[in-house]
Amino acid sequence: MTFTLPPLDFRSDTVTRPDETMRAAMASAEVADNVLEHDPTIAALEERAAHVLGMPAALWVPSGTMANVIALSLHLQRGDRFLATRGAHVLTNELGSAAWLAGGMPDVLEHDGGPGRPSPDALAAAIGQPGPYFTLRTTLLCLENTHNAAGGAVTPPDEHAQLLSVAKEAGLTVHLDGARLWQAAVALEVPPAALTVGVDTVSACFSKGLGAPVGSVVAGSRTFVERARRMRQMLGGGVRQGGVLAAACLIALDRVPELAESHENARRLAEGLREHGWPANEPDTNIVLAEVPDIPTALAWLDSLGVRAVPMAGKVRFVTHRDLSAADVEEALRRIKTGAR
Amino acid sequence: MTFTLPPLDFRSDTVTRPDETMRAAMASAEVADNVLEHDPTIAALEERAAHVLGMPAALWVPSGTMANVIALSLHLQRGDRFLATRGAHVLTNELGSAAWLAGGMPDVLEHDGGPGRPSPDALAAAIGQPGPYFTLRTTLLCLENTHNAAGGAVTPPDEHAQLLSVAKEAGLTVHLDGARLWQAAVALEVPPAALTVGVDTVSACFSKGLGAPVGSVVAGSRTFVERARRMRQMLGGGVRQGGVLAAACLIALDRVPELAESHENARRLAEGLREHGWPANEPDTNIVLAEVPDIPTALAWLDSLGVRAVPMAGKVRFVTHRDLSAADVEEALRRIKTGAR
Amino acid sequence: MTFTLPPLDFRSDTVTRPDETMRAAMASAEVADNVLEHDPTIAALEERAAHVLGMPAALWVPSGTMANVIALSLHLQRGDRFLATRGAHVLTNELGSAAWLAGGMPDVLEHDGGPGRPSPDALAAAIGQPGPYFTLRTTLLCLENTHNAAGGAVTPPDEHAQLLSVAKEAGLTVHLDGARLWQAAVALEVPPAALTVGVDTVSACFSKGLGAPVGSVVAGSRTFVERARRMRQMLGGGVRQGGVLAAACLIALDRVPELAESHENARRLAEGLREHGWPANEPDTNIVLAEVPDIPTALAWLDSLGVRAVPMAGKVRFVTHRDLSAADVEEALRRIKTGAR
Amino acid sequence: MTFTLPPLDFRSDTVTRPDETMRAAMASAEVADNVLEHDPTIAALEERAAHVLGMPAALWVPSGTMANVIALSLHLQRGDRFLATRGAHVLTNELGSAAWLAGGMPDVLEHDGGPGRPSPDALAAAIGQPGPYFTLRTTLLCLENTHNAAGGAVTPPDEHAQLLSVAKEAGLTVHLDGARLWQAAVALEVPPAALTVGVDTVSACFSKGLGAPVGSVVAGSRTFVERARRMRQMLGGGVRQGGVLAAACLIALDRVPELAESHENARRLAEGLREHGWPANEPDTNIVLAEVPDIPTALAWLDSLGVRAVPMAGKVRFVTHRDLSAADVEEALRRIKTGAR
Repeated sequence: MTFTLPPLDFRSDTVTRPDETMRAAMASAEVADNVLEHDPTIAALEERAAHVLGMPAALWVPSGTMANVIALSLHLQRGDRFLATRGAHVLTNELGSAAWLAGGMPDVLEHDGGPGRPSPDALAAAIGQPGPYFTLRTTLLCLENTHNAAGGAVTPPDEHAQLLSVAKEAGLTVHLDGARLWQAAVALEVPPAALTVGVDTVSACFSKGLGAPVGSVVAGSRTFVERARRMRQMLGGGVRQGGVLAAACLIALDRVPELAESHENARRLAEGLREHGWPANEPDTNIVLAEVPDIPTALAWLDSLGVRAVPMAGKVRFVTHRDLSAADVEEALRRIKTGAR
Repeated sequence: MTFTLPPLDFRSDTVTRPDETMRAAMASAEVADNVLEHDPTIAALEERAAHVLGMPAALWVPSGTMANVIALSLHLQRGDRFLATRGAHVLTNELGSAAWLAGGMPDVLEHDGGPGRPSPDALAAAIGQPGPYFTLRTTLLCLENTHNAAGGAVTPPDEHAQLLSVAKEAGLTVHLDGARLWQAAVALEVPPAALTVGVDTVSACFSKGLGAPVGSVVAGSRTFVERARRMRQMLGGGVRQGGVLAAACLIALDRVPELAESHENARRLAEGLREHGWPANEPDTNIVLAEVPDIPTALAWLDSLGVRAVPMAGKVRFVTHRDLSAADVEEALRRIKTGAR
Repeated sequence: MTFTLPPLDFRSDTVTRPDETMRAAMASAEVADNVLEHDPTIAALEERAAHVLGMPAALWVPSGTMANVIALSLHLQRGDRFLATRGAHVLTNELGSAAWLAGGMPDVLEHDGGPGRPSPDALAAAIGQPGPYFTLRTTLLCLENTHNAAGGAVTPPDEHAQLLSVAKEAGLTVHLDGARLWQAAVALEVPPAALTVGVDTVSACFSKGLGAPVGSVVAGSRTFVERARRMRQMLGGGVRQGGVLAAACLIALDRVPELAESHENARRLAEGLREHGWPANEPDTNIVLAEVPDIPTALAWLDSLGVRAVPMAGKVRFVTHRDLSAADVEEALRRIKTGAR
Repeated sequence: MTFTLPPLDFRSDTVTRPDETMRAAMASAEVADNVLEHDPTIAALEERAAHVLGMPAALWVPSGTMANVIALSLHLQRGDRFLATRGAHVLTNELGSAAWLAGGMPDVLEHDGGPGRPSPDALAAAIGQPGPYFTLRTTLLCLENTHNAAGGAVTPPDEHAQLLSVAKEAGLTVHLDGARLWQAAVALEVPPAALTVGVDTVSACFSKGLGAPVGSVVAGSRTFVERARRMRQMLGGGVRQGGVLAAACLIALDRVPELAESHENARRLAEGLREHGWPANEPDTNIVLAEVPDIPTALAWLDSLGVRAVPMAGKVRFVTHRDLSAADVEEALRRIKTGAR
């Protein structure tokens, strides 16, 4: 008789599932039609998220991709140049919506300031000087903290502040893709609001590592959020009794401190992978990028062992999360080291 | 001591809330990451919805607006002219996304074939003949059944077939906005699939009158649905453990036959409004459009009576639904006739 | 031996060709790179056109279509509803660019105020009242004077003023498609600037009936024209030594008074067509719309007689212009009445 | 009495002006309405340009920017990723129209294969492997020959062929921005068609260094050109009697061999600038990029000497052309070396 365990899923922290507590909250959530009026649970989430993020207002949206594309659409005029870091989610993981939908012409910042961020000098150079009417104008900087393609790297508040200073001096709007801002805050042991100082808008996600099934927010000024609400409706993100989802997001917010465990697991995983001979980053948070001799071969071999990962930025990405325990990490390492499931 | 009852909410059938059965189903739904793979409950819903709609495949989306804009985006090339009926949701209730996002140039068909539909001759005339390269080309017909702005009017299969025949002969693609297709099927006592014969794509909604909190589908060929999945991701409609929502949509599908009660309630409401001196349509389904002397005055007066309605197409719209009983309708009529809450 | 005369070309007044005077002016035009700096002849044209049109500034563009799409692109936010008259050029003759490129959701105004214009009441009704955030907002009115699809009909200043008053009271921007504004001014015996009072922007064309080979202007505030210059560059309408074309446009401006002759010819043509049994409008300017039993048959028959016309708005359109003399009109009528070339 | 000579204009080869021969040709050009039918001189130019470029068909357009944006718009689906070389005109000089209008998400190729081109290996790596439905797909490669930001660098046919081979194996469409393809052909002493082997579409320009006031072409298959004609009309690039401009473009084509002189002048200029202490490229064609201590200071100083240049890619760009003689180059160098006008 063959018995197969379910695979250990390191593909993403988006795979985390709502537990009984969340499901119970969803089942008892107070709801209303959030298009016609304001669903009370969504309203509560938006108010709390705005507070936690240190922003005047926030808007619930079905996904981080929608959060970002709404922000970019409202910040950019047709053809405006915007700057984002190499491998940024808005550049590589949103199917080009920053360009075709938001209308921006992207340009890439290298990570010369540290993993996941440019140096202030490189940012200033990339912004350049305003030219005559027939030249591109640069109007927006997109930061990402933690930075996915940089292995979950954290940008600390002082470096963030320096980048903001350069951007603001040049008159740029700043959007922060905070899909994993919670992770950055936990790693730095600061409140999330310490990481949004000076930005115009920020997105944050409740379904990455926190177990909420569906939902992100985009936060900014009250005027921005009013406009964002309209844009959300345009894109088809206006839902009716979304309070059932927001109830889970509220619990996700409670769980932010628990992310520390997945960070510890990631460090252990990276260590084990290095022991196996796969160079890996020293993870700030919950993302491990391992160098392997051949990516497709490695992924197929991992899959045969019941360990799932994905390719990213020329490496293999493993993401730890609340549905993978320390024991799961040890089991994954055991399989990798022994080559046996 | 003042005691105020909650208002009787006839604004829309989107206000229906999930009941205990739905909430329990949501709480126990099997889920997975529907971006990375296929959430099993969403997969089950999509399969069942495709079957019920008589289409090869279907895709869950967060809203009917997203269902329609995905279909239009995939059917239209930049600047293609499309035809839709006066007051159609894609023309008047989706914030222009048919134009700016899907890229279509709309033109309006009058309801000369009956409420909610053009005559075949008028359709043929509107399509016209193909012109030289520098002229608009007409490539898409959007039908809507039932038709919201026509007071929930039903287009029967034979008339539908005649319109399809004209459209297809002229080489047009046909999209059916079936946000309330269930209502049409119930009114006609035919299966929903009888109303999609010949169309290329159809959208249908689970949160109108059926109590599901969030969710629609867009259905078509397998190739269309593959492309639609990508477009959904682009727009930010790709969600993770959406099975919690699909579980409610599956129950909504079970409840389609129960819509008959809201249709009966609408007929009673229309009768009562006419008795009050407000001319109203003889509703096919669950939408009553009443003529009033002055719309803002009438709406404010209704509101003061705890009866909520909305303006539509130069009239006042009342929508009946599962969260309003026959007794609620009688109570609303009592308030209207007596002018007292 | 067969001898065939060239056809009498009534298809459009865009077929007029530059004569020796224009060609000489083009050959001696002072020019410079109009992207890098300001071509002096283009500058002279823009200054003069702005003055004649009664606007603060004007921008040369290669076509009337580009003039209109630039104006609409700058006036409209994504999905804004705009109103235009049935058959307006921006609706029917610009391949949907008002929608897919400028981003507007069009709605049609009937000509109940007279040929080519709505009544003020109908306009007010079409604008309606602002609704909640999830509803279309109406931000732009497009007028067209003379109105092509209305048979070159003229809107006089007083009616224009009434429409402007309604639009402005509702907070709308107003763009006037003045592709044939010169014709309107000549017919009304007023300066062109009398017909732009109160509009935000106006387009005007130099190659319709005036013989200039290429060129239109779009005029408005100085800020608008600065933004329009950038949009022109984006669309690929920024040309280098365009003074060779502007030289012809300057001469076209001198010739505006001569348009009266083509108006007289149009009246004679309409009269003759009616004598032939084809009902035709009493033309205000240079466009005759004739009712024929069957359009394709009539056009083919006309073509066999060496008389060229085009279908428009369910009729056959004949346009008179400077390259067709009074004798040419009589010759065309002779052929039509005798059925012989 | 002060006497000021006109400045020596090295800003761009777009500043070249039509001479008497061109003006005479324009003045006598046979013309017709190129929207309604085919202007005979434009038709002649398109036929000849297609032949010279080795493509099945070509379309005249008012600018190189429009040529490129038409090609990209027709090649790209919403959000498709395309690859272009660092500093490519489509990335940096077209106001983002590749993104907002054509809908592409750009990514940058470094010049590791030589100035102006990637290596085949880097191209293959940048294309990568196709991913799942929720990932960007790469569908287009844009090459540029000569390459403006690389100092007019030429890509020879064998290297071009290697890049094409990589792109085609990966299923990419290839567009060649040949704004200065004539210059490449002259430098390599090959026919222009030798440089378009294998590309799907190519643009070429008649107003860079050749004296034609206005005009480019975009060439490709007959089907592509049919679609391009429609897109040109949409963008407002459909002009009427454009033969007056095409007549100049035909003469420009005759003058391609004369470009050799500007290449020789560029070599002399670069040599002189190096003698002055400003490192400069050894120009393949007519573009010199000089390194200066401080760009704004250098440009202002040059301007005070009556020598005009522009900033580009962190250097100062000088472009030689037919309106600058060898003596003009010597005079410019004299002023630079002496610091006196």
